[in-house]
Amino acid sequence: MKLLDLEPIEVNIFRGVSPDENRQRIFGGQVAGQALVAAARTVDPERHVHSLHAYFLRAGDPKVPVLYEVDRIRDGGSFTTRRVVAIQHGRAIFNMSASFQVPEEGYDHAFPMPEVPPPEELPTMRERFLSAGVDLPDFLDRPRPIDIRHVDWAGPDRTPRPPHQHVWLRADGTLPDDPILHTIVLTYASDMTLLDTATLPHGGSWFDPTMFMASLDHAMWFHRPFRADDWLLYAQDSPNASGGRGLSRGLVFTRDGTLVATVMQEGLIRRARPAG
Amino acid sequence: MKLLDLEPIEVNIFRGVSPDENRQRIFGGQVAGQALVAAARTVDPERHVHSLHAYFLRAGDPKVPVLYEVDRIRDGGSFTTRRVVAIQHGRAIFNMSASFQVPEEGYDHAFPMPEVPPPEELPTMRERFLSAGVDLPDFLDRPRPIDIRHVDWAGPDRTPRPPHQHVWLRADGTLPDDPILHTIVLTYASDMTLLDTATLPHGGSWFDPTMFMASLDHAMWFHRPFRADDWLLYAQDSPNASGGRGLSRGLVFTRDGTLVATVMQEGLIRRARPAG
Repeated sequence: MKLLDLEPIEVNIFRGVSPDENRQRIFGGQVAGQALVAAARTVDPERHVHSLHAYFLRAGDPKVPVLYEVDRIRDGGSFTTRRVVAIQHGRAIFNMSASFQVPEEGYDHAFPMPEVPPPEELPTMRERFLSAGVDLPDFLDRPRPIDIRHVDWAGPDRTPRPPHQHVWLRADGTLPDDPILHTIVLTYASDMTLLDTATLPHGGSWFDPTMFMASLDHAMWFHRPFRADDWLLYAQDSPNASGGRGLSRGLVFTRDGTLVATVMQEGLIRRARPAG
Repeated sequence: MKLLDLEPIEVNIFRGVSPDENRQRIFGGQVAGQALVAAARTVDPERHVHSLHAYFLRAGDPKVPVLYEVDRIRDGGSFTTRRVVAIQHGRAIFNMSASFQVPEEGYDHAFPMPEVPPPEELPTMRERFLSAGVDLPDFLDRPRPIDIRHVDWAGPDRTPRPPHQHVWLRADGTLPDDPILHTIVLTYASDMTLLDTATLPHGGSWFDPTMFMASLDHAMWFHRPFRADDWLLYAQDSPNASGGRGLSRGLVFTRDGTLVATVMQEGLIRRARPAG
C-alpha cells in the first residue's frame, strides 16, 4: 500500500501523504499506520514491535502531507521505545509511543477463537449494502485496500443489540513477506469497525448520519506473527459507554485460531444535530 | 497519601519522592500516580481525566527524587491532552500521555459486575500468608496504603489455573473528596495484582522468587466517578502470554456494581535464574 510508504526528510523525520480521497479528515488508521512506519524506520529490524499507544489530537487534513517526528526515548538491551508526533500546519495532530523487543521465548497461553462462519460464506460490505437496498456510501464504489466481511451485520436496522461483533478482514492482493508490513497493515485496518461496537446497544453504526464518531486513542499489542493478506478474525466487544465516549476491545485471530493481536480504542460518540 | 504530593519546580516541572522503603526499584504504580498528579496540575480542574497510556522505560531509583516534565501538547475545546516524561539521573524512566475532558452526557452502557463474595468475608493478604504458613514478605509487616482482598487466592500453590482473578481493594483511611485524588489512588493501586493474572496458567505469582516480572506499559480509561477509600472490585483476566510478555485486562467496579474504570497492562515475565 503506497500510502504507508514514507519519504525520509531527516534521520528522525518522515513525511507521508494521503490518498486522493474525498474525505473531510484523514482516516485515523492511516495516521497510526504511517506513525508506526516512521518509528520502525529508526529501529533495528531484528527488534519487533510488540505494542503501541496513541492519541488522536486534531482532525488530519488530507490536502497536505503529514510530518512524523521520531523521538528515540529508549534504546535498551532487550527493548527499544519510540515516541512519534504527527504534525500538520505547525500543530500536533497525533502522538504515539511504540515498543520493540528482541525476540525471546517465554510462557505461552491465549484466549481461544470464537466459532463463527468462514469469510467465504459471508457477503462483502458492498453486497451487504446493495442487498439492504440502502444508498451505497461513496467509498464503497471504489476499490478498497481492506476486504471486510461482517459476521454480524446491524445494517440499516437500528434495533439495539449487545455490544459484540465479529468481522473477518484481510488486505486485498498479496503483500511482501516483511513482518513489519503486516503489522502496519493490521494497525491501519484495526481502526475500522472497532468503535462501531460501542454504538450497537444504542442503535447506531458508523454509517448512521445522526451519530458523530471520532477515535480518541488507539492501543495495540502484537502477540505472534501473522499475514495481513490472509483472513484475520477481529472479535470485538465494548465494555462501556459514558460521558460522550465509548470504549471497545478487539482480539485478532488468524483463521487457524492463533491469537495474534489485542486492540483497545476509545472514541467520541455524539448524537449529531440533524442536517439542514 | 503523601507520596502522591508533588513539589512544583517550574510551571510544567514537578518533583516527587519515594517512601522510605527497602525496594530495589520504585513501584510502577507510584510513578504512574505521580505522573498523573503532574499532568493534572497543568489542567483546569473542571476537566476530568478519562484515559492515560504509559510506558515504563527503566527501573526507577528509590534513593533519588523523580522529576516530572509536562508537555501541554493539546488544549482543545472539549479535550486537553498532556504528555509527561519522568526523569532520573538524566534519563527518561517513564513516559505517559493522558487525556482530560469537559464533562458531557452521552450514550450509556456497561458490562455487569461478576458475582463474588463481599470483601468483609475475605481475609487480608497478611492473613492469607500467615494461614498458608509461608514466610511473610517484609512489606506486609508494615502498614499498607492499599487493603487488598483476593477472592481467588493461588497462594504458595503452583497448580496452573485459568488466567482470571478478582480482588477487592481500597485505600486505608478516609481520603478528601477531590475526584482527581481518587483517580490517582486507583492508578497507583491498579498496578498491583494485574500482571499476576498472566502468570496463573504457568503456576506463578508475584511472590514467586523464580519469576522475574516488570510492568512494560499501563493504560487506563475512567468511566464514572468513584471513591478509592470505599471497596472496588478489580476483575482481571489475561488474554495472552507469549514472547516473554503477558497481557492482562482489568475492569473496576464499585461495590454497587457500577463500572468505573478499565485497565490494560503488559509485563515482562521471565523465568529467573535460581538464586545462589
